[in-house]
Amino acid sequence: MTTTRRDFLQKMAFGAGTALLPNRPGGGFSEPKKLGVALVGLGNYATLQLGPALQETQFCRLAGIVTGTLAKAEAWSKQYGLPPQNVYDYRNFDSINNNPDVDVVYVVLPNSMHAEYTIRAAKAGKHVICEKPLALNPAEGERMLAACREAGVKLSVGYRLYFEPHHLEVRRLGTEKVYGAVKMLETSLGFSMADPKVWRLNKALGGGGAIMDLGVYAIQGARWTVGELPVAVTAQGYVRDRAVFKDIFETMAFQMEFPGGAISNSTTTYTSYVDRLHATTDYRWFGLQPAFNATGATGTAFNGKIEFPTPKFQQIRQMDAFAESVLRDTPVLASGEEGLVDLKIIEAIVRAAESGRRVELAWG
Amino acid sequence: MTTTRRDFLQKMAFGAGTALLPNRPGGGFSEPKKLGVALVGLGNYATLQLGPALQETQFCRLAGIVTGTLAKAEAWSKQYGLPPQNVYDYRNFDSINNNPDVDVVYVVLPNSMHAEYTIRAAKAGKHVICEKPLALNPAEGERMLAACREAGVKLSVGYRLYFEPHHLEVRRLGTEKVYGAVKMLETSLGFSMADPKVWRLNKALGGGGAIMDLGVYAIQGARWTVGELPVAVTAQGYVRDRAVFKDIFETMAFQMEFPGGAISNSTTTYTSYVDRLHATTDYRWFGLQPAFNATGATGTAFNGKIEFPTPKFQQIRQMDAFAESVLRDTPVLASGEEGLVDLKIIEAIVRAAESGRRVELAWG
Repeated sequence: MTTTRRDFLQKMAFGAGTALLPNRPGGGFSEPKKLGVALVGLGNYATLQLGPALQETQFCRLAGIVTGTLAKAEAWSKQYGLPPQNVYDYRNFDSINNNPDVDVVYVVLPNSMHAEYTIRAAKAGKHVICEKPLALNPAEGERMLAACREAGVKLSVGYRLYFEPHHLEVRRLGTEKVYGAVKMLETSLGFSMADPKVWRLNKALGGGGAIMDLGVYAIQGARWTVGELPVAVTAQGYVRDRAVFKDIFETMAFQMEFPGGAISNSTTTYTSYVDRLHATTDYRWFGLQPAFNATGATGTAFNGKIEFPTPKFQQIRQMDAFAESVLRDTPVLASGEEGLVDLKIIEAIVRAAESGRRVELAWG
Repeated sequence: MTTTRRDFLQKMAFGAGTALLPNRPGGGFSEPKKLGVALVGLGNYATLQLGPALQETQFCRLAGIVTGTLAKAEAWSKQYGLPPQNVYDYRNFDSINNNPDVDVVYVVLPNSMHAEYTIRAAKAGKHVICEKPLALNPAEGERMLAACREAGVKLSVGYRLYFEPHHLEVRRLGTEKVYGAVKMLETSLGFSMADPKVWRLNKALGGGGAIMDLGVYAIQGARWTVGELPVAVTAQGYVRDRAVFKDIFETMAFQMEFPGGAISNSTTTYTSYVDRLHATTDYRWFGLQPAFNATGATGTAFNGKIEFPTPKFQQIRQMDAFAESVLRDTPVLASGEEGLVDLKIIEAIVRAAESGRRVELAWG
């Protein structure tokens, strides 16, 4: 287990439990080694968010890329000064196991490729961050978790909002019952997407449209605020344009019942722009709008605004938190298990929509 | 048809189609006669909203009351200077037919009494405003409409928001597709009400809890913004506390499908405070929060605020509009038919929640 040994040595070097400090010029300590991250898949999210964010991280850095497009390989190599041996394509990807520059593989591929590349990365001895949704279905998710467990590497799902200050505050307000217990929630995310060429509209690649792509956020927004797992779901699926939405729902509404009595009602859609989280207690309310997008949340509550500085990139803290959990061998917050939970909820939601029935969820 | 004859004479006096002008000191015209309104049922809504609002109306005035409580009769008579012959109880109510001071009866009773008192008022030759929901079910509503039609009197349902400036603007934005066609809506209304003694929690009196009481607003908010009638509904009912919510749903989520393709997703609840309307088009959004309460709406949109002066009482314009439609014999905007439409939608929603099935609606 190369990686585990490296972790161990790193922990020895830092002193286990020592706070990881930023570089302090004139200080007596050398800067801790940053973990090398290789991005697999160089689409918009990698290009506009993860690549730039990795220039700002404290405990990790962009070390490599995996792409099937020569022009992207050249552009990224030039922009970020990547050495040729750290640039992979999908055929030679597995040889990354010999590359000591790469500690973490970040899978940013279409959903249908998450399982394969996470498992291959784990087998190469690399820690893995996999974009959301973790996989196409719970069975794939289970295999990914097992592969990482067997390889002794850590797995994270790319839930950037677990580290976003407005979301942390909403979680605090909800789970600590600051204004009383949350009774009802509305969480919604949608945008207009009707280009049939987008992979997200292809069921084989995306796994099911808005509920797979955006549903994760709406589910997260509710269960994160309540701090519980839903025990039952109902759902309604809609298709306005069968020419574009051949075998997936264009809009999906779904309801979750939480064990403490809270009910959430959510909408995810590819028809139009919506981005909201709203939580109510007996006599109070709080929420975010916009809530889930990567460029910044705005919070309001019955008693005023929920205001925090907007991070330059939400992914800075997300990736640093994972790097810290690797370096210190501490539990991962946005864990593969968290991603798997949401896959199970999505599966139940789709089943509820297709059957018209309430679907119960049991958590082991 | 006493009332119809009086209408006719009034129209003659004003000149048909003449604008009804407020009293202008020094002007050449005498002030048009204000229609006399008798309030039936002196609960909170009559006491805190309708009574005070009738002091500000231009085309109607508080002329009488109907109450079974002597103390209320005395207090109101004193406060508003009502002559004894205009104060009724529920036994002598029908003798109101002989009272030329009363042109309009406003029914503000528990839902279960709407049909009876609307029909008795119509038989007494009086125009009727009936609070929402119009009745317990569509069959009752049909009988009310028939009774008013037979008596030649006008019927209105107490939809104060048909006259509220923020709602008028939202209707304009939606129906005129100012930012494109509305694709998705969320409309929600709830507050915390767990006192089992409240008539609204008694199925026989209230007709079904939050969906009857608050659902009307959530339904209205969506269909008013889209400008269409829903063609199908799904719904989910929840009860957290069976001791209090014996035979009604405490929370109800429901979805409406509109013929133009818009989908609404709504929540009504007695668990907690929520009061919102949110509409989305392809790339834009607009909404109200608070939306439906009687004390004032606040509007926001993607491009800023939707701001209008808050009326002192929304019911001023509501009652004046009805008075004008009586005086001019023009169609009633917040008509009994509108109230009946919502009863049909509510019935379908309850059927959908109880059966777990999608219920289609056909409009004649």
